[in-house]
Amino acid sequence: MPVNSHQNLAMVTCTAPVNIAVVKYWGKRNEDLILPINSSLSVTLHQEQLKTTTTIACSRSFLQDRIWLNGKEEDISCPRLQSCLQEIRRLARKRRNTGDPTSDISVVSHKVHICSVNNFPTAAGLASSAAGYACLVYTLSQLFGVEGELSTVARQGSGSACRSLYGGFVQWKMGERSDGKDSFAEQVESESYWPELRVLILVVSAEQKSVGSTSGMHTSVETSQLLKYRADVVVPCRMEEMIRVIRQRDFPAFGELTMKDSNQFHATCLDTYPPIFYLNNVSHRIISLVHRYNQFYGETRVAYTFDAGPNAVIYTLQEHVPEFVQVVRHFFPSEANGSEFVRGLPVCSADLSEELKRDLNMEPTQKGIHYIISTKAGPGPCVVEDPNLHLLGVDGLPKKSAVSD
Amino acid sequence: MPVNSHQNLAMVTCTAPVNIAVVKYWGKRNEDLILPINSSLSVTLHQEQLKTTTTIACSRSFLQDRIWLNGKEEDISCPRLQSCLQEIRRLARKRRNTGDPTSDISVVSHKVHICSVNNFPTAAGLASSAAGYACLVYTLSQLFGVEGELSTVARQGSGSACRSLYGGFVQWKMGERSDGKDSFAEQVESESYWPELRVLILVVSAEQKSVGSTSGMHTSVETSQLLKYRADVVVPCRMEEMIRVIRQRDFPAFGELTMKDSNQFHATCLDTYPPIFYLNNVSHRIISLVHRYNQFYGETRVAYTFDAGPNAVIYTLQEHVPEFVQVVRHFFPSEANGSEFVRGLPVCSADLSEELKRDLNMEPTQKGIHYIISTKAGPGPCVVEDPNLHLLGVDGLPKKSAVSD
Repeated sequence: MPVNSHQNLAMVTCTAPVNIAVVKYWGKRNEDLILPINSSLSVTLHQEQLKTTTTIACSRSFLQDRIWLNGKEEDISCPRLQSCLQEIRRLARKRRNTGDPTSDISVVSHKVHICSVNNFPTAAGLASSAAGYACLVYTLSQLFGVEGELSTVARQGSGSACRSLYGGFVQWKMGERSDGKDSFAEQVESESYWPELRVLILVVSAEQKSVGSTSGMHTSVETSQLLKYRADVVVPCRMEEMIRVIRQRDFPAFGELTMKDSNQFHATCLDTYPPIFYLNNVSHRIISLVHRYNQFYGETRVAYTFDAGPNAVIYTLQEHVPEFVQVVRHFFPSEANGSEFVRGLPVCSADLSEELKRDLNMEPTQKGIHYIISTKAGPGPCVVEDPNLHLLGVDGLPKKSAVSD
Repeated sequence: MPVNSHQNLAMVTCTAPVNIAVVKYWGKRNEDLILPINSSLSVTLHQEQLKTTTTIACSRSFLQDRIWLNGKEEDISCPRLQSCLQEIRRLARKRRNTGDPTSDISVVSHKVHICSVNNFPTAAGLASSAAGYACLVYTLSQLFGVEGELSTVARQGSGSACRSLYGGFVQWKMGERSDGKDSFAEQVESESYWPELRVLILVVSAEQKSVGSTSGMHTSVETSQLLKYRADVVVPCRMEEMIRVIRQRDFPAFGELTMKDSNQFHATCLDTYPPIFYLNNVSHRIISLVHRYNQFYGETRVAYTFDAGPNAVIYTLQEHVPEFVQVVRHFFPSEANGSEFVRGLPVCSADLSEELKRDLNMEPTQKGIHYIISTKAGPGPCVVEDPNLHLLGVDGLPKKSAVSD
């Protein structure tokens, strides 16, 4: 816990990643504790492309807890923020009371200033709450010197945030207990286990605002018989199978199961009453393109998955990235010039055979995809050591640079 | 069996209706006999708006069986056509062999000429095979003097055709036997049972050709775990409930169950691998509009259902038709002038309150809906007595007027 000499200010900055589920979480059995109706499994994305950075300072001179998200002060009284703050403070006090000599007694009672930014536009429609709550909880734990299981705390901010506390391939075990103590995340394999795996995020323009995932999954649990069957019967088998195919680095099996699970999640949204639609016509066309592409090669080379919005996340292997990106460019011609259309990890150029273009047999869709973020699996949260990168100044207020991109 | 003096020609003309399921049929347990994995229930639509007309002639001078559909000769060797022809001829021979004195021995051995037209454009994307096979089987039975259970025959042409053999509210009981003898349709209530019920078909433009229902349901049965659960567990309860709410003429309950069942059918299509999409963005907007409209009034006044395509079929009560049609006009402005946009049963004009328009809170979608067919429940197949209306001439060939609309 680094302490700044000014104003008796303690300050820590950390980053945390986004994760994309391949066995989807949808539905809570306890809304307060955020306990899910099924286990889930995700890939943590590399923070070089997508991350949340959070600086938290505490000082006896702060009069109240405050939070700034992407440059704008937000209401700290939000129940989920309060859950995380209270839980970390409780753990810090418990640690002090159990006599850990390294714990700092004073800071736990101080108020905190929290400042958090994403390195990706909110408008991209990428779920940022997982990275956000993971970063909040991780940074608080660093500030207060709390160690041990943090995913049960992050889970209470946003369910899927618990999975962002680990790198690589991460499962969230649903648990059975009513107090949620056995509902936590754990790493299945690290990010270095399957280095050839690549991730492409196809950012699709949403025509309408979608139903939020909190209210959406609430309605699904209340009304969808298919969701209950999925959670009780289908997902337990899929979790086992997904862990097996990841350990075997079996891309065709991994890809097929990922697509099936995405489709089944969206099927349960449609079985919800009133129904929820997250996929739009562009999403449908991406799905169709992926299946035709795989059919052309007679094997599953690329796989899609969609969360609560129209953006596609594509999993594939490094060797197939250049051609598939060119396929996307061809069938979703963009206004952006070449360098802007693909962001993140560099992608080599590739030529498409006439045979492939003909076999895919689709009319190009103008402007359906804004841009692609090219990335891969990455590590869990990190501490940022360079004090120049703190988002809060020595006055405990956001630096000018800590406004959103 | 009317006999024409020319050429020893026997000729009969009949009409049969379209039906729209409110508990959906999707999936066969036997593809040859067309035995379904679940029971289903539909409303037979009035033939004044939607019907198939079929003339069948037989003569000893005909050299082979022939068929003309909407003015174009088609291949009679199609297995499903052959199933129906063979089955009716078998029943006719059986009747003769059991010594029915009214049966005509000779005609069964004669070849037939079949001519069939729809009074609605094929391009409207309305499933015409149900009306077509029902009409074929009914007309053959009239020609050959076959009486009794025809729905097991029509079922072998197109599953849902069995339901078009009755008017009003019709269930297709899935049966249990492997020979399909207990998989037949029966009337739940006649078309006069619920006279206030109205049907609006919103004809939506399809951007892409959809997966055909035969291959679609085959893939669903092979791949969707949710479909199996739906068929085994959900539908049996829904059949009972649907029959109960129809008998009680309980529109809110009927409408809600109809919408839920449509959504669940499309959910199982999405759970199919590769997934099948029949709903497009316009379908999604119609669904959204219906839910907002019902929410405005705090009760289910209109209900949607969608088959294997983007067209919406709306069930509502007579008293709500004018306003809801005006709502559709407002949010889906069409190029067609007023009289062309609504076809079929006349619809009174209505004004929309500013409050309603504001509460529905949708951007109008230009040209999303081509036109509306306004209709209601109607009777089953009928014999056309007027010989001027035969589609075949005395030469046994299609009259010039028997070409498609």
